[in-house]
Amino acid sequence: MPQYSNFPRSFGVLYYPGFEVLDIAGPLEALNILARMKGFEDMELSIISKTLDPVSVGPIAPDTTSKNFAGRQRYLPTHTFANAPPLDVLIVPGGFGSADPLPSGGKPDIEGYVDFAHKAYCGLEGRQPLKYFITVCNGTIIAAKAGILDGHKATTNKDGWNAITPLGPKTHWIAKARWVSSGNVWTTSGVSAGGDGILAWMNSILPDEIVTKVEVSMEWIRSKSADNDPFAEIEGCQDVLPKEK
Amino acid sequence: MPQYSNFPRSFGVLYYPGFEVLDIAGPLEALNILARMKGFEDMELSIISKTLDPVSVGPIAPDTTSKNFAGRQRYLPTHTFANAPPLDVLIVPGGFGSADPLPSGGKPDIEGYVDFAHKAYCGLEGRQPLKYFITVCNGTIIAAKAGILDGHKATTNKDGWNAITPLGPKTHWIAKARWVSSGNVWTTSGVSAGGDGILAWMNSILPDEIVTKVEVSMEWIRSKSADNDPFAEIEGCQDVLPKEK
Repeated sequence: MPQYSNFPRSFGVLYYPGFEVLDIAGPLEALNILARMKGFEDMELSIISKTLDPVSVGPIAPDTTSKNFAGRQRYLPTHTFANAPPLDVLIVPGGFGSADPLPSGGKPDIEGYVDFAHKAYCGLEGRQPLKYFITVCNGTIIAAKAGILDGHKATTNKDGWNAITPLGPKTHWIAKARWVSSGNVWTTSGVSAGGDGILAWMNSILPDEIVTKVEVSMEWIRSKSADNDPFAEIEGCQDVLPKEK
Repeated sequence: MPQYSNFPRSFGVLYYPGFEVLDIAGPLEALNILARMKGFEDMELSIISKTLDPVSVGPIAPDTTSKNFAGRQRYLPTHTFANAPPLDVLIVPGGFGSADPLPSGGKPDIEGYVDFAHKAYCGLEGRQPLKYFITVCNGTIIAAKAGILDGHKATTNKDGWNAITPLGPKTHWIAKARWVSSGNVWTTSGVSAGGDGILAWMNSILPDEIVTKVEVSMEWIRSKSADNDPFAEIEGCQDVLPKEK
């Protein structure tokens, strides 16, 4: 029996046009460090998108007013929805690309991602159901549209609070939360909160000494309390109770 | 006269095989947010590498023992050393790819990056000299080899302290430092410290209200003190005085 055999091994992340770079880099950094450690060398990562084309974190629509600073940052997927392998964990980043309307005024191109997240979570069409589902920031938009947050407690980024929480009317939204765990669904607050959230998630499965090694290696000044969230007050966010069952 | 005209506009980052994902994602996240703000739309980013091939954050040598979790993460450059535009700021991430020997036992492929950093900093071969040079983590290896840290105070990641500081014998290495500013050379501690370092650097040029907007937007629980570095003590690091002039 290998050590830490209860720790999941097959990770997937969703890259969609206009995802936020640090939303995914915090969790991936922690996982990269863990995957270098003895006993975790068999961790596997699939970067999943609509096609295998590079995915940009920049504006979705052609942008004639700026030099498109973020748009220069392009990342390569490894799999499409069609050929993604069985997954234990799916991580969904936030980003302007999931906002409706987009900052450019158009519609977001996230239907395929919502559909994939739904099927992966539930284990439909021959897929194995996920063991864990994790969102960072407004990755909650995809999660809520996929129905994954129904009946769960959740949080999201604080500057999008009033626009996002209505998308999950069956969700109990916790405002003052760096992250929220609810069964196998983990949601974190905005952007940087993904780093604290992934470490808390790891720590729910692995012993302290392993997670501390990861945290020290990434020199992350970690928030160990789920309610250490100064941004809820700054942005004036309030809890939202479920409006439907 | 545009507002904030003293803030630099042309940013470059170096991507080399085996760079660390969060080293660059922290600074880029902060800059991405700034570049969306009024008055900063003309910020420009060049992602510079040896070739235009995708650059992986994973192991450099073929790795037969693991599933190459990090190696699946591949990023696209926009420029090579030969065609990079004039730069005001160059940011150099750390990563296992700059270690000598590499974790796989081979030699790092960073000579071209060292040479580019040297010429960019000094303004050689028709280049304009950089206004600012910023490293994260063991990006100091490239900086030290390029001579950029000579005569400067600097810091680096704490788990590589004893291996890296001898590469800069003309540098005063400060152990308990989240970041160090020394003239136009900014160095930060490991990985996550790049986020605090870039915000401190921004704040050295821009007013508090702008930087606070960036910090709140990325929900970064910021260390505002340069000496807020718990990892120096954890790793037992001591200051190192220059051994040569």
